[in-house]
Amino acid sequence: MIATIITIGDEILIGQIVDTNAACISRALNSVGITVRDRISVGDDAPRIREALDRALAVSTVVIITGGLGPTKDDITKKTLAEYYGSRLVFDPQVADHVQRMLDRRGIAFNELNRSQAMVPACCQVLPNANGTAPGMWFERDGRIAVSLPGVPFEMEHLLEETVLPRLREHFRLSAVVHKTMITYGLAESILAETIAEWEEALPAHLHLAYLPSARNVKLRLSAYDVEREEAQREIDGQFARLEAIIPEYVLGYGDDVSVFRAVHEALIRRKRTLAVAESCTGGALAAEFTALAGASEYFLCGVVSYSNSAKVHVLGVRAEDIERHGAVSREVAEQMAAGVRRIAGADYGVATTGVAGPGGGTERNPVGSVWIAVADAEGVVSAKYTFGRLRDQNIERASAKAADMLRRRLSQREEK
Amino acid sequence: MIATIITIGDEILIGQIVDTNAACISRALNSVGITVRDRISVGDDAPRIREALDRALAVSTVVIITGGLGPTKDDITKKTLAEYYGSRLVFDPQVADHVQRMLDRRGIAFNELNRSQAMVPACCQVLPNANGTAPGMWFERDGRIAVSLPGVPFEMEHLLEETVLPRLREHFRLSAVVHKTMITYGLAESILAETIAEWEEALPAHLHLAYLPSARNVKLRLSAYDVEREEAQREIDGQFARLEAIIPEYVLGYGDDVSVFRAVHEALIRRKRTLAVAESCTGGALAAEFTALAGASEYFLCGVVSYSNSAKVHVLGVRAEDIERHGAVSREVAEQMAAGVRRIAGADYGVATTGVAGPGGGTERNPVGSVWIAVADAEGVVSAKYTFGRLRDQNIERASAKAADMLRRRLSQREEK
Repeated sequence: MIATIITIGDEILIGQIVDTNAACISRALNSVGITVRDRISVGDDAPRIREALDRALAVSTVVIITGGLGPTKDDITKKTLAEYYGSRLVFDPQVADHVQRMLDRRGIAFNELNRSQAMVPACCQVLPNANGTAPGMWFERDGRIAVSLPGVPFEMEHLLEETVLPRLREHFRLSAVVHKTMITYGLAESILAETIAEWEEALPAHLHLAYLPSARNVKLRLSAYDVEREEAQREIDGQFARLEAIIPEYVLGYGDDVSVFRAVHEALIRRKRTLAVAESCTGGALAAEFTALAGASEYFLCGVVSYSNSAKVHVLGVRAEDIERHGAVSREVAEQMAAGVRRIAGADYGVATTGVAGPGGGTERNPVGSVWIAVADAEGVVSAKYTFGRLRDQNIERASAKAADMLRRRLSQREEK
Repeated sequence: MIATIITIGDEILIGQIVDTNAACISRALNSVGITVRDRISVGDDAPRIREALDRALAVSTVVIITGGLGPTKDDITKKTLAEYYGSRLVFDPQVADHVQRMLDRRGIAFNELNRSQAMVPACCQVLPNANGTAPGMWFERDGRIAVSLPGVPFEMEHLLEETVLPRLREHFRLSAVVHKTMITYGLAESILAETIAEWEEALPAHLHLAYLPSARNVKLRLSAYDVEREEAQREIDGQFARLEAIIPEYVLGYGDDVSVFRAVHEALIRRKRTLAVAESCTGGALAAEFTALAGASEYFLCGVVSYSNSAKVHVLGVRAEDIERHGAVSREVAEQMAAGVRRIAGADYGVATTGVAGPGGGTERNPVGSVWIAVADAEGVVSAKYTFGRLRDQNIERASAKAADMLRRRLSQREEK
């Protein structure tokens, strides 16, 4: 079963809003086994809307349309749909009644614009919108379905989940689509691809693999379309289990909310261990990544952003002569920062970063992007130097992720013992 | 001048990512006077990509394509573009050299997949990508331009702003579009709209006003299309000067990179004053906002993320009996944190946050979203309590911005003296 999504609104085309509805509709359709073939976004403009409908209905059995149904604009999408289906707008007393009741609750008077919201194409089936004034509309012609939904995300989602999906499943007696996403960290996309090439080539043709790289990690997604759900899930689980055996130390887990920070977060909570961080080049970003996760107060004791050398010496206890001799970006300073913050916070683990985020401050020995990272625990301190890129924001993000990964590896070594 | 945007990727169609590139490209094209007619999203699939190109080039003079350029096998955009333009892939030694240097810096070996990144359609002009391994590509046929850009947002943005927009302006000798954006902080969108309603109504018809609200600030953009540049700039400057007189204390400045953090950053550098921050609920995010700005080391001395009460007492010198008596989320603790971090860092200003970010930890006195913020300087400490919302990430972002704004106001009082 194939679908096209049409999102309507001038605000989308000028980039004033990011079109989150489209992603939400895609996931919802996928969940009942409908594959999204393409998406089209057009402005609040009748000829463009008609053109999009022509294109979409030529290739897809299901077309989901959002936007253009508010009280100020609804003339366009609704009128265009009525004309497109050779119908006209008629007054729907049930919709009028619903709009009236919604306005009453908020103490707003029913006006001419609201009356126009109760006008619907005579040929459609009205889908009541419990959360807003604009109803959804269901059109059928030549075995193809077009559904028009309001653009307000919350209203759209409810209508889609509660009304549209059940109707589509019933109407088409649908088969399933199964996706699963593995989150990896520590191998660049090209190295990862090389490492798992054999596994990838041996995948059966009906399983599709996609790489999704970012500055934080590389995600691998396996998808199966038009399949029996339980069997496909078993098959994908089996393939990922095989893959885990190939790159065990690079797999963080499954699902879009998994990250190297969350892996550490969960490991620390599980093992009841505590953490303190000392940051120079990452400037608080490392602490912020952990504390963004609900429950971080169970293990996160203290962070120190020791930007000045004085703070390194007086707050963390780094030896001034080591800064003098080796520079602030050095193994010695990173290790003393990690050990120092661990000590002052009374934490089980101390993690430190010191480097050159850029754009200024690079030297021959430590060009922009150079970062020393250290992890301290009861058994001592480990440290390593990394070289990231030219951009300040990326260097901060990559160094934070790498610091978390060094701690993750240290934690899993401890777990093995 | 009319454009179509094509975004490519299975991850878009299954809703795994929200397509932020499309909004960014729309804004960028608008800024040079190009109107986006429509957008199409398709999967990593050659026939669909060809179909999208056919559609787009039939109606638009400019087509911007993103996604599908990574080194792995699911990326077929490049091959499809080469075939579409009746060309073939050839090895580009300059691209290979660039990829090699990028990998060298990160200590990664150049492999067969990287070699494939250096293959480009013979007929295109290569647009070097300073921030990634996949280059942009510029195609011309029958007076129409198609530009293919990588899908990683920050690589795409840099290439677009630094290379593609200047080329498009030159190529089409574009008429001027003048935009100017005022950044405001401290008034909610609806209050702001009410406050400036008279000014807004008096705007001449050829100037367009847009409100762009976010968790950090509300931006106001004035645009003039198809105009004489100098005159339009003078006129927009004049209108904004009038607006500044209406809401003087809420205006941070002009341009998309202005923020309450940057306003403080610049004021501290200008006045040669130094800063230290102590954070509880913001968890490092406040420090990270400042240190994300190049040059922060001129004034940012030290941050302390005192998540545990022990860190508040032992690192910052907060009195344990005050935590006991008033709780960690209290005026007393916020003020002692601000004064404490100022003292230990030897800074001119100390700023502190302590609150309940959520989702847990709320009490009747301090429900989720309650935050105390304090600013300390040589003359003493000021503090205030705010109540934000229910969501952890938003509470952290809003509290960070509000803390920076309190410091901004303190700094501008000092300046007036």
